[in-house]
Amino acid sequence: MDPPPQQQHPVVDIHTHMYPSEYIDMLSSRTTIPLVRTFPSSPDPRLILLESEIPALERALADPSAPLPGRPLTSHFTSLSAKLAFMSRHGISTSVLSLANPWLDFLPTGDDKEKEEAGRTAHCINASFEAMCAANPGKLFFFGTLPVTAPRQTILDAITHLSELAHCRGVVLGTSGLTSAGGAAAGGSGLDDPALLPVLHALADAELPVFLHPHYGLPNAVFGPRSSAGEYGHVLPLALGFPMETTVAVARMFLAGVFDAVPGLVMILAHSGGTLPFLAGRIESCVAHDAALVGKDKDGKRRRSLWEVLREQIYLDAVIYSEVGLKTAAEAGGGAERLMFGTDHPFFPPVGEGADADGEWESVRLNAEAVHKALGDGSDEAALVMGGNAVRVLRLYKA
Amino acid sequence: MDPPPQQQHPVVDIHTHMYPSEYIDMLSSRTTIPLVRTFPSSPDPRLILLESEIPALERALADPSAPLPGRPLTSHFTSLSAKLAFMSRHGISTSVLSLANPWLDFLPTGDDKEKEEAGRTAHCINASFEAMCAANPGKLFFFGTLPVTAPRQTILDAITHLSELAHCRGVVLGTSGLTSAGGAAAGGSGLDDPALLPVLHALADAELPVFLHPHYGLPNAVFGPRSSAGEYGHVLPLALGFPMETTVAVARMFLAGVFDAVPGLVMILAHSGGTLPFLAGRIESCVAHDAALVGKDKDGKRRRSLWEVLREQIYLDAVIYSEVGLKTAAEAGGGAERLMFGTDHPFFPPVGEGADADGEWESVRLNAEAVHKALGDGSDEAALVMGGNAVRVLRLYKA
Repeated sequence: MDPPPQQQHPVVDIHTHMYPSEYIDMLSSRTTIPLVRTFPSSPDPRLILLESEIPALERALADPSAPLPGRPLTSHFTSLSAKLAFMSRHGISTSVLSLANPWLDFLPTGDDKEKEEAGRTAHCINASFEAMCAANPGKLFFFGTLPVTAPRQTILDAITHLSELAHCRGVVLGTSGLTSAGGAAAGGSGLDDPALLPVLHALADAELPVFLHPHYGLPNAVFGPRSSAGEYGHVLPLALGFPMETTVAVARMFLAGVFDAVPGLVMILAHSGGTLPFLAGRIESCVAHDAALVGKDKDGKRRRSLWEVLREQIYLDAVIYSEVGLKTAAEAGGGAERLMFGTDHPFFPPVGEGADADGEWESVRLNAEAVHKALGDGSDEAALVMGGNAVRVLRLYKA
Repeated sequence: MDPPPQQQHPVVDIHTHMYPSEYIDMLSSRTTIPLVRTFPSSPDPRLILLESEIPALERALADPSAPLPGRPLTSHFTSLSAKLAFMSRHGISTSVLSLANPWLDFLPTGDDKEKEEAGRTAHCINASFEAMCAANPGKLFFFGTLPVTAPRQTILDAITHLSELAHCRGVVLGTSGLTSAGGAAAGGSGLDDPALLPVLHALADAELPVFLHPHYGLPNAVFGPRSSAGEYGHVLPLALGFPMETTVAVARMFLAGVFDAVPGLVMILAHSGGTLPFLAGRIESCVAHDAALVGKDKDGKRRRSLWEVLREQIYLDAVIYSEVGLKTAAEAGGGAERLMFGTDHPFFPPVGEGADADGEWESVRLNAEAVHKALGDGSDEAALVMGGNAVRVLRLYKA
């Protein structure tokens, strides 16, 4: 059994990412996003993940004086000691690590050999996370990675493997579903695809919660020509595209009746549920006012309201950067019991003049402050969000 | 001067739509959306507005037994007496009418004749609204319609015309901006287009607030194949596409520095700001953590934070259908002073077995209940949201 931290109220970060070296090697060998590229003018390689970053990548490849695309792949993305130092600096007792987006969504599935390869890659990455955690007992747990493009049995085998790893406490999942069944680069078949149900049942049976995280955002055209030209940095895809993607994905699951079909499924939604806490009322009203849907509840779909699902099967992280948002997230779940602190490390490091990635991160401070302001500094509720809920829900410090 | 209502606390509906007969005639003559079509199996013509409704339209045109597309164009959309009866039934003292989406966004601008036509159409529709209001003193005001596809001078002339109409209290605007400059059916050049600034300055100078309303939503692909197949009715485009469109449009304006450039501009955002109250913290954090933007504040863009803009230049309607959402909207604006009740009539009528469009509307009840639950039944704050704020901000009952 991993030892619990000495302090009375542990601080647990459930939204914190790592790229193991195997994964970086894979990204470095790629020619389409996601990829890692080295530029002469930059000490760190650059990590290019988003469709919205492609124009800047093309500009930088054509013109050495153009601004660098993506973000620097610093040791914060790849080094366990950087993660542990970051935790120590921010008073974080325990981190639940997850592979950062886009996980293994992009693996090719052209032939049987490639399909098997996806399973082997997931196995290798999950074993790597387990080794990191085992070397730091009580400090690290992780959400595993699934080979979503592989055949169903390979995914189910990966779930079995994860359930045998002592430090695995769930899986991280994107919104694309079984991308092999959908084909679209951004979208896939979605989490409302009935073909995904056996996977969700297996996760529920293994008591592995799903940490749902966005990656694809919204099509660039939505953000307009000035965003594409770089005038707004990456603000719109990150600040709006990401939460909207999460909201759409979960609303699709809700409308498809997935939560009722798999009542044991537990979801933890990144970025406080995208926009779900604010829009749940509008979703419920639109269902109640849609002639094509009203009366359909009886056939077994959508037995419960979205509010009930939010209070029974969904947890939210507390990565929302404002007191207003934090309160909304807590109220949507019926109280502070369904919120869990997170940092989104290593994304959103300090930037600008005098920025020090090895000092205090404002992004972390904003989220911690929001919890304390919204729920009361030193309150029991704040302690639950900062760590107590994660300890309980993810059964940390238990064999 | 229009007489104020007898009651101590007037109830004002600032989000309520009408289609004058000239507009319906125009839609009936069209072969692409937006359009009005008659089907043998339906007593009312059908109104088809959204891209997401096209598959159902095509199915219905090919197969008379297929479900009807769009929504019935009942007297609630077209008849002033139906509007007044609806108001009376729901205890609404005063309505601020607006043309429903998509306004005049779709008018062709191929040649000079067509451009002039847009100006004439707007003039005719605005005169029609003024006549309705003048015939019902104290009961009706309106937000005017702009010929956004016309040349700039035509738009400015329309603003001058509106400022001379006794019952005009602002303009209703979509998110597409000067569509003639953009060309895309869904999107246009956006409200962050610098070419729109003279129009926004003219509106500020005329003290005409902008009631910002969505229409285009998000591309259908975002909602997945099961939504396109009609399995989820129109829930996703309406419940998520609409608020996300509004959020993106206002975030683009904010990042472009429009609010600082036109400090006299007053915006009233439909559907409680889309998702802006919940996501404002994330937007601010993404700006603060974007290396391409940090330090740029000094050149005159984005002098104020989004929170400041929300509290100084933006009002929100209270069309959010939940206590949780209503509280968030109030807090984002720094209090109940920036929220105004609305119904979205004639959209979201009662549906299903025994539904009576001439009885009480649940959609209205949900929004009124949210105000009273969130702010306190009978409280001064609730009275402000239900009417007091609209009376003050829109200078109702004053010459």
